[in-house]
Amino acid sequence: MGQPLDPIARGVLAGDPRALARAISLVEDDTPAGVDLVRRLHANTGRAYLIGVTGPPGAGKSTLVDRLTIEARGENLQVGVVAVDPTSPFTGGAVLGDRVRMGRHAGDAAVFIRSMATRGHLGGLARATGDVAALLDAAGKDIVIIETVGVGQDEVEIVRTADVSIVVLVPGAGDEIQALKAGIMEIADIFVVNKADRDGADQLAQAIAANLALQTYAPGTWRPPILKTVATTGDGVPELWASIGQFRARHASAAAGRRRVRDEHRLRELIGHQFLQHLERVLPPGELARAVDRIAACEIDPYSAAAELIERSTAR
Amino acid sequence: MGQPLDPIARGVLAGDPRALARAISLVEDDTPAGVDLVRRLHANTGRAYLIGVTGPPGAGKSTLVDRLTIEARGENLQVGVVAVDPTSPFTGGAVLGDRVRMGRHAGDAAVFIRSMATRGHLGGLARATGDVAALLDAAGKDIVIIETVGVGQDEVEIVRTADVSIVVLVPGAGDEIQALKAGIMEIADIFVVNKADRDGADQLAQAIAANLALQTYAPGTWRPPILKTVATTGDGVPELWASIGQFRARHASAAAGRRRVRDEHRLRELIGHQFLQHLERVLPPGELARAVDRIAACEIDPYSAAAELIERSTAR
Repeated sequence: MGQPLDPIARGVLAGDPRALARAISLVEDDTPAGVDLVRRLHANTGRAYLIGVTGPPGAGKSTLVDRLTIEARGENLQVGVVAVDPTSPFTGGAVLGDRVRMGRHAGDAAVFIRSMATRGHLGGLARATGDVAALLDAAGKDIVIIETVGVGQDEVEIVRTADVSIVVLVPGAGDEIQALKAGIMEIADIFVVNKADRDGADQLAQAIAANLALQTYAPGTWRPPILKTVATTGDGVPELWASIGQFRARHASAAAGRRRVRDEHRLRELIGHQFLQHLERVLPPGELARAVDRIAACEIDPYSAAAELIERSTAR
Repeated sequence: MGQPLDPIARGVLAGDPRALARAISLVEDDTPAGVDLVRRLHANTGRAYLIGVTGPPGAGKSTLVDRLTIEARGENLQVGVVAVDPTSPFTGGAVLGDRVRMGRHAGDAAVFIRSMATRGHLGGLARATGDVAALLDAAGKDIVIIETVGVGQDEVEIVRTADVSIVVLVPGAGDEIQALKAGIMEIADIFVVNKADRDGADQLAQAIAANLALQTYAPGTWRPPILKTVATTGDGVPELWASIGQFRARHASAAAGRRRVRDEHRLRELIGHQFLQHLERVLPPGELARAVDRIAACEIDPYSAAAELIERSTAR
């Protein structure tokens, strides 16, 4: 537990944006210092309300998140935003995106926005996102919004286990809608038809309603509302914010259950991740590479190779 | 290794579609019998050429894959298709999709199509997909096409490590294109502008070309071509098929390297997965749940909890 990190941990707890930015970088880069920070600050988490926002590229999610941030700020709530962005190491889009986004809330220290690119997170994006959300929580953000593109498994998982899950769709060609519906219908606590001033908004809302009608809801259970917004003008956003508040009030007791699911996923992922590190530490260097060679040469199958490596690194 | 499975393994090796379907179900359900099959059949893999196809929902990927299947059949090649489909347990879309798709190749035993839904694959979709691809390989499929929606990390990873990666885009609003480009530009060996009879196809092709122009290519290296197709009519598909052939011929020696990357990812994922099973086996029942309780109660942080569980399950 290195002393040198204390200033960063203290800075995070004080909500200092520079300390937070530094802490998140340490976590993103999967450094021991980052792990140490998350460990130390864990006791200061559990207060933030997690809002998951997902939908296809071009649905206007970042503009909508910006509007939700303004609503939250209107109630004097502190806001952290994690945009999970599958941007490549080449384009540098995440960093650029942050600058554009931060510009809207420039000078408001109560808003912290960070894009997470997938670089360096092979298999660990959900873990890194969980850690960053925890840091924002520890930094005193009342609302943490996790915004993610698309229907990938990691992304859906992140949003599904948020305290409230918002699925953003936009009017478009029928096949796109059909394809999207299949993947993300069931994770939504609230549906948003954004760009609702476009043709087809009513049809899209009706299509969602028709799909929802196929499901049975026990009396008294939450039925996902379908809200129309125009994020660029802000139309419909106060109603969305109110709906989030209603969901939150109605599910105050269920929030602990969702957090438990999140914690369990996080623990399982960490166990797999840490065990691989343990394995590489205790086995002779290059042992994993040799196993890959043997798999490629069909000398051993991957399951047996995995079992063998586990056996060798757990036996003492 | 259990005798009762031999008929299925034999059936897979003989390319029997019913045995293959059964084997894939066993693998999808993560059963010991499925693991046993993959282990036993590993020595019979390594021959198939893996084509990864990705792109947003509604890009016409499945129609394009169908057309590529026809091209491959024209050369008397056997084809296996794995469509990674983030369909929910509620809609049953994957199964329905298979029926529609299989209809096109009904009675052609040389074509096997399977959709994989994400249900039951939390954190294990890539593993299951790798296993299914291995089964198709063992079954003698010359070409295995892995088709996947979206820009999620698992999906990108699956396609990135294929022998050739095809990114399918469609003409559409500018912001959608921008958003997509960021995530999947760099994984493409070949770009396809599908629905090229629509307005905006040329602009999209130009936008991709402009983006590629920003990158530097060493002399003699493959520069991803941008091909236009209309999958519904088949226009441009023979050219796409020819381009795949060119890529394959040019990268014959590099294929082993990509396979190695695939094998390493698969091994790492299996180690994490199997270690969790090991941990749950050697620790007292409910220990993982108790750790989650302690994390939720902020009595311990997730990293320390993971380290503690690993320590306890590796010490003898």
